[in-house]
Amino acid sequence: MQIAILLYDRFTALDAIGPYETLSRIPGAETVFVGERAGTHRSDLGALGLVADAALGEVTAPDILVVPGGPGQTALMADGPLHEWIRAVDAGTTWTTSVCTGSLILGAAGLLRGRRATSHWLALDQLPGLGAEPTGERVVFDGKYVTAAGVSSGIDMGLRLAGRIAGDTVAQTIQLGIEYDPQPPYDAGAPEKAPAEVTALLRDRTRFVLSGQE
Amino acid sequence: MQIAILLYDRFTALDAIGPYETLSRIPGAETVFVGERAGTHRSDLGALGLVADAALGEVTAPDILVVPGGPGQTALMADGPLHEWIRAVDAGTTWTTSVCTGSLILGAAGLLRGRRATSHWLALDQLPGLGAEPTGERVVFDGKYVTAAGVSSGIDMGLRLAGRIAGDTVAQTIQLGIEYDPQPPYDAGAPEKAPAEVTALLRDRTRFVLSGQE
Repeated sequence: MQIAILLYDRFTALDAIGPYETLSRIPGAETVFVGERAGTHRSDLGALGLVADAALGEVTAPDILVVPGGPGQTALMADGPLHEWIRAVDAGTTWTTSVCTGSLILGAAGLLRGRRATSHWLALDQLPGLGAEPTGERVVFDGKYVTAAGVSSGIDMGLRLAGRIAGDTVAQTIQLGIEYDPQPPYDAGAPEKAPAEVTALLRDRTRFVLSGQE
Repeated sequence: MQIAILLYDRFTALDAIGPYETLSRIPGAETVFVGERAGTHRSDLGALGLVADAALGEVTAPDILVVPGGPGQTALMADGPLHEWIRAVDAGTTWTTSVCTGSLILGAAGLLRGRRATSHWLALDQLPGLGAEPTGERVVFDGKYVTAAGVSSGIDMGLRLAGRIAGDTVAQTIQLGIEYDPQPPYDAGAPEKAPAEVTALLRDRTRFVLSGQE
């Protein structure tokens, strides 16, 4: 079972690492990080480089595709070689997945038309323009298409998918292995739960980022 | 405020990325990934390379030190240049932190003597031999030393530390930005919560890994 995780410049690191740390621990899984070019891709905050061991053309038949989000997503919405690759490998995947604004890339490639999907809460309103129906769920399964909400939700997606693929015991073993017993110090992880001033602050700040104008 | 995150071969990716994705979002933070050598370090599962932009000698005065864990930790317990560097930068840090078995490295460097600390649940019993007192808490503050439990706990640690450093509103903004509203599909993230067979499975499997003999 090959898992291909897409990298690009200005992706969000945890978007990629959440699914990696969960799905890659399924017995028999082989993971490859793949980029438009092989080599180092810097994450959104700039301080971190992750290495894509393969270029797009070197990965032709993954069983699972994972597309992370991040500010760099805005540069990947036009049709071209990346969308062609996504469509080509999607034709053979068992699961095509995204985290955060990665769903906008899947949508732009034409894969989410008529499907229920999610994205980062600040980007949900962009899904209808790509033919998808936004939902408020953290992880959305629609056939083989699995989309997760913002950044950290890729951990929950990875565990749910691990359960579907390898059964509950394997998924629980992965959860216990990464000691995923979350204890956030605040209950501020969703816009309807966070203090209104916090939601407003972030809405102002990231509207800027999401529009690619930072 | 400089944050130095240590990389080494066979570290666990999420151990490093959890604190990175939270602490690095504090306004004014500057993060550097640092390794015994600059360049790519492969994570424990082998498929992922993270780039250390700096070698140890290039980072002399970080305000925050983050030491991740992972199977490669077992190779870093002997005194030498890494421990010397950890002790030297610790003399000037505001916070010295670890995730997972990173606490064993801090302990081996002599920094946790007489302190309360934690680690991956499978490694807690190694703390007393390093002079530390293990606790069952997910994130442990003892003075400027902050240790977190296994792998995913670095997210909780990062948010708690962000709150201490920059206040609750900043930390909540970071939490909402990464949409950290965890919804694990199982309640199996701690040994006392997981099904007994799952805990037993992992105990057998990772005793092997933790002993460095896989």
